[in-house]
Amino acid sequence: MANSVSPMQLAEYVVKLPGHTSAVGTQVLKAEVGCVHLAVRKRPDLLQWGGIFHGGIITGLADFAAGTAVTTLLPLGRSAITIDLHVNFLSAADGDSIIAKAKAVQVGKSISVAGVEVFTVEEREERLCALCMITPRNVEVPPSVMGAEPAAWAGCG
Amino acid sequence: MANSVSPMQLAEYVVKLPGHTSAVGTQVLKAEVGCVHLAVRKRPDLLQWGGIFHGGIITGLADFAAGTAVTTLLPLGRSAITIDLHVNFLSAADGDSIIAKAKAVQVGKSISVAGVEVFTVEEREERLCALCMITPRNVEVPPSVMGAEPAAWAGCG
Amino acid sequence: MANSVSPMQLAEYVVKLPGHTSAVGTQVLKAEVGCVHLAVRKRPDLLQWGGIFHGGIITGLADFAAGTAVTTLLPLGRSAITIDLHVNFLSAADGDSIIAKAKAVQVGKSISVAGVEVFTVEEREERLCALCMITPRNVEVPPSVMGAEPAAWAGCG
Amino acid sequence: MANSVSPMQLAEYVVKLPGHTSAVGTQVLKAEVGCVHLAVRKRPDLLQWGGIFHGGIITGLADFAAGTAVTTLLPLGRSAITIDLHVNFLSAADGDSIIAKAKAVQVGKSISVAGVEVFTVEEREERLCALCMITPRNVEVPPSVMGAEPAAWAGCG
Repeated sequence: MANSVSPMQLAEYVVKLPGHTSAVGTQVLKAEVGCVHLAVRKRPDLLQWGGIFHGGIITGLADFAAGTAVTTLLPLGRSAITIDLHVNFLSAADGDSIIAKAKAVQVGKSISVAGVEVFTVEEREERLCALCMITPRNVEVPPSVMGAEPAAWAGCG
Repeated sequence: MANSVSPMQLAEYVVKLPGHTSAVGTQVLKAEVGCVHLAVRKRPDLLQWGGIFHGGIITGLADFAAGTAVTTLLPLGRSAITIDLHVNFLSAADGDSIIAKAKAVQVGKSISVAGVEVFTVEEREERLCALCMITPRNVEVPPSVMGAEPAAWAGCG
Repeated sequence: MANSVSPMQLAEYVVKLPGHTSAVGTQVLKAEVGCVHLAVRKRPDLLQWGGIFHGGIITGLADFAAGTAVTTLLPLGRSAITIDLHVNFLSAADGDSIIAKAKAVQVGKSISVAGVEVFTVEEREERLCALCMITPRNVEVPPSVMGAEPAAWAGCG
Repeated sequence: MANSVSPMQLAEYVVKLPGHTSAVGTQVLKAEVGCVHLAVRKRPDLLQWGGIFHGGIITGLADFAAGTAVTTLLPLGRSAITIDLHVNFLSAADGDSIIAKAKAVQVGKSISVAGVEVFTVEEREERLCALCMITPRNVEVPPSVMGAEPAAWAGCG
């Protein structure tokens, strides 16, 4: 019964929880076991002074995608909280949107690792703009966050 | 004439440029040559689902503080763009605000390095919540960004 | 004439230069443009107290493979020197040898990025034990190092 | 009784265990609770082709110093194993020796964080050449390693 929701249901649920992720308009493009793709569209308040996506927005999207990808592999009521992350910025994120494609590399009893490729998208053309390695640890989701939908926090593995 | 603005003038100018950094309400607490402290107050759209500051907001603030600290040491018309960053999240950023204290460790001809300590603040009590190492490279600021105030981009070193 | 050596010639040349890399017995398994695989066999002086490969040996091999992979794409007389690296250790490197498989992700005018997968090998079975992101900058190789074989430093791109 | 050895006894014990750390001639310069300084002298087999200390040797020394600094704060029979590390190389390690000065930043139930400054030393002059952030997790030391001196693995906190 642990796997009572699909990865897509989990991802759709968490990107809509109140907070930064929903405030920037995060959309779920794909969610499978261990693999989640999230996108954010260009908006003036998400850019840096040069008119490209801000590094914090890129990192935040990558981090959330990584955490969700790992959470799909965790048991019910547990989630992934990042303990450290590393980002290489490869090119200017100057497109109309960015997409973070996260893949769980390893899920352990307490620590996991996920890799994320971030693309900037212009007229459906994707160009790699950042590579991230993210190390989350597994934590219990507090009941106040699970709210009326505890099953939505179920792992999907 | 390269050093025609003070570090404080530079910092105040860049945090108010249109974009993410001004949209989250970034404030300059301190700006000296090679050292910049920036703060952001708690706001619902800056948090993750657990009610603490989102990792992307923490990273974005640290990154901007690091870039500004390095820019105070660069010649007129040049700025610092991050090529990679690493963040260790040490404790939950559950305070009323976060402060990123950035220090330029090394400023080279093309590459620099800055270290940033991020604190979460509750009733004036600061607790270290993240440590970042940020590697920017030096770039020319495009005239369109310098606009009517090119001097504001002057290094202060 | 810049591309006067093959990637394999370059790799075979640099792993045999005097120093740590040759002292640990590094072998070239594969060398193509932008892609280099290096291996080291188990030896008591390369292990940590638990009997597995030491993190410094794993990192050193990954770093050298990354630098060589990038150098295959640089012009004659230039090489790649690491400015920063990040390693995720995924499992104990308890095999008879380790193999670092490096791939240049991006080669720029001054800065490049390479990703490296490190495997531990036991009876021809490979298991991923570390993932590395390495950021080198391009430098001139000093004539004293190029010695009598300057062409060996040629890029192969 | 958990703290039956001093940090110095612990450090002296672990740098002499068979393996890479003792093979490169690691010396303990200082060992206090949460803080360990280790040094290695120049030797042809520890250098890269340019005649400076190899990045893997620098990283390996930093990593070992970090692990030992954290272990001084752990209970008897537990040690620190690195799950990930990040290194910024700031200048060429061209001195006669290198010194890694590690400090435990945070010691948790399962995960810790340590920062390390690495200096290159020439005629007693120290110059910062690398900065490292290291994330170890706490593990049980196997009895076979503790051998006849289990107390040497005691934490010192």
